[in-house]
Amino acid sequence: MRSPWPATVKGLNMLEQLIENVHLITLDPEREGAYGLLPNAWLGIQEGKIHSLGQGDAPEAEMTVDGQGQFLSPGLIDCHNHLIWGGNRAEEFEWRLQGRSYQEIAQAGGGIASTVKATRDASDEELYQGAAERLQTLLDEGVTTVEVKSGYGLSLEHELRVLRIAKQLGEAFPVQISTTLLAAHALPPEFKDNSDAYIDLVCEEIIPAAAGENLADCVDVFCEGVGFSPEQCRRVFESARAHRLPVKGHVEQLSDLGGAKLVAEFHGWSVDHIEYLRPEDVPSLKPSGTVAVLLPGAFYSLKETQMPPIQALREAGVPMAVATDLNPGTSPLASLRLAMNQACVLFGLTPEESLRGVSQYAAQALGLGKQKGILRIGFDADLVLWNIKHPSELSYGFNLVKPAAVLRNGAWI
Amino acid sequence: MRSPWPATVKGLNMLEQLIENVHLITLDPEREGAYGLLPNAWLGIQEGKIHSLGQGDAPEAEMTVDGQGQFLSPGLIDCHNHLIWGGNRAEEFEWRLQGRSYQEIAQAGGGIASTVKATRDASDEELYQGAAERLQTLLDEGVTTVEVKSGYGLSLEHELRVLRIAKQLGEAFPVQISTTLLAAHALPPEFKDNSDAYIDLVCEEIIPAAAGENLADCVDVFCEGVGFSPEQCRRVFESARAHRLPVKGHVEQLSDLGGAKLVAEFHGWSVDHIEYLRPEDVPSLKPSGTVAVLLPGAFYSLKETQMPPIQALREAGVPMAVATDLNPGTSPLASLRLAMNQACVLFGLTPEESLRGVSQYAAQALGLGKQKGILRIGFDADLVLWNIKHPSELSYGFNLVKPAAVLRNGAWI
Ligand SMILES: [Zn+2]
Ligand SMILES: [Zn+2]
Repeated sequence: MRSPWPATVKGLNMLEQLIENVHLITLDPEREGAYGLLPNAWLGIQEGKIHSLGQGDAPEAEMTVDGQGQFLSPGLIDCHNHLIWGGNRAEEFEWRLQGRSYQEIAQAGGGIASTVKATRDASDEELYQGAAERLQTLLDEGVTTVEVKSGYGLSLEHELRVLRIAKQLGEAFPVQISTTLLAAHALPPEFKDNSDAYIDLVCEEIIPAAAGENLADCVDVFCEGVGFSPEQCRRVFESARAHRLPVKGHVEQLSDLGGAKLVAEFHGWSVDHIEYLRPEDVPSLKPSGTVAVLLPGAFYSLKETQMPPIQALREAGVPMAVATDLNPGTSPLASLRLAMNQACVLFGLTPEESLRGVSQYAAQALGLGKQKGILRIGFDADLVLWNIKHPSELSYGFNLVKPAAVLRNGAWI
Repeated sequence: MRSPWPATVKGLNMLEQLIENVHLITLDPEREGAYGLLPNAWLGIQEGKIHSLGQGDAPEAEMTVDGQGQFLSPGLIDCHNHLIWGGNRAEEFEWRLQGRSYQEIAQAGGGIASTVKATRDASDEELYQGAAERLQTLLDEGVTTVEVKSGYGLSLEHELRVLRIAKQLGEAFPVQISTTLLAAHALPPEFKDNSDAYIDLVCEEIIPAAAGENLADCVDVFCEGVGFSPEQCRRVFESARAHRLPVKGHVEQLSDLGGAKLVAEFHGWSVDHIEYLRPEDVPSLKPSGTVAVLLPGAFYSLKETQMPPIQALREAGVPMAVATDLNPGTSPLASLRLAMNQACVLFGLTPEESLRGVSQYAAQALGLGKQKGILRIGFDADLVLWNIKHPSELSYGFNLVKPAAVLRNGAWI
């Protein structure tokens, strides 16, 4: 969408691109009022960034687009996603509903072990292709940034392979990919009954290699009885810190092991799931700026009944993000828009909280809070145009509203 | 997709179209085994119908398509849908989540009354356009038949207007529309405190007019404390019978008024919702062949906890259909595939029950059980090709699998 003429012909001061006649859902916390709404406004784009925005007279631009009175929001951000895996768990889903026991299913090779095996067995092309289809589905919804975790490789070779594929996806698609090393996701079969030895491998080989190759933006753990202990997660975080990598954690999903406090102690980006986080422990997240990432798709798919401490998070001023947790076992739902609706229906978030959860606070949860997630001068021009009459329509219902247009770094896609 | 040559050139016996190298998800109850599966098979199409199907040597055809080892299923059928409405209820959704009371919302003009007003106020073009977008979303998922109810007009003029728009949609889109007159959906404001007088209007004017113009395939009621009494619904059904129209009912959604028994007494096509139907009353549905239509989207959106009597329905051999209940208030979810997943996750249906619920039994629920919903010789060639490895993938998760191709009456769309 760059102008075919060099800027000098039109004058150095001419804006590259202008979108006029739009209502801006800025979500900028410095703007008062619901959704930080700036009605009847315009937004200028220069070199992929938001150059200017306002009401009234707009600057002249090389290209001007009439927004036709629609709403313009930041691009959506999915800040918790296990996008890359081999195989699927559909037959296991069927077995469970046919009444087979977890033990039977485990004996038949089901559970996360089956995804680890299928991921290791898949070729690079197969992993890329499966993830690419799921990624495109998210982009069609107005998503412009996606976190991608490893965690089904569980070996030096396969964890790094998955992160490399994540980087390739980010180069091929109009999306920013934030990569997360989640080697401490589950115990690989080679380390059965010796989880400390696996954590040694994670800390001494996998993290250093991922850091050395610049493959990971963050390091994640699964702190849970069926995952790893707080002591083991602490070792992973110490290794991450030694390699100057930020951390986050799957914590308090099924029980309260104090994982959230541990993440906060390491100034982690986010604590994810947190159904079992006690309300009185919520304020401990505040000083470190840690974001609470709510994952209603997993809550729904697992038929959980224990709710995350929403009201305590609100009262403590801990930012709440919303994400898909897209994965083949516990949240096989490839839709951030569905997660927005589920966050309202299942967790009682308001539509504004839900929308901020997939933009403003999702950006913070990926360390991108100074460049993405709100409409503010200098921020990335990741934008979605919506043919709606009110921003609440973005969380209300499902499949009723699709993006009219999406821009990433100022380019129409 | 008709051959450009007249059939005589190629011989009178040559088949129009053949799809080979596919696994047929026939769902035909005369075939044993899960999903009535016929693997490594072919299917012949002639004049919009399934002409033949089998394994091994296939007949020669004017056009042959390689199914590439994918799965072929019947087109999906959404048998409960309020597709046509004006306005939306997004702000009301927001008010509820902001903690405003039902009374406040009703006083602000919310609830079904707001949709009735917006529907009456909308032009034909606005109603058509809004419904067309939602319909296209369903068709993209592999849906080839959709039921469309009136029920937001609530006057002779507006009920008939909506049914006419439904018919227009069926002519413009590659879909069969089954129209349902649901004038007894709610009490219009003109009849406040005089519901019997409104039922007079329904029985004496609206039903006769709809029948006379051939606008309705069926007559529906909302039998509920907040809807109409069983006595009033009986009067509606009697009027329908006098005009040779079959019936169905929204029954036992919020309480048990005996609506399901009433529908069965009139040999109704379906009883819909039925969360409050007592298990001991389930067998009364069997003799009339009435289908139980499960609507998990409304259950989800309303955060219901009372489950429909699934096990009793299974034991009594009452067929279970699954539908969207797409409507702006209690189920604003425009996705039959999501309803399939919700039926499994929320109601515990198996993936096979869920798939039969949107094909075989959904067809029965629309009086189309002898022409749609299964792959059998002589049935309509409404077909979906899926790039999957097992039929359970169609209910597992969401947005992971989309149709590779859709045929309606043998035509590729
Ligand atoms: Zn996760
Ligand atoms: Zn309904």
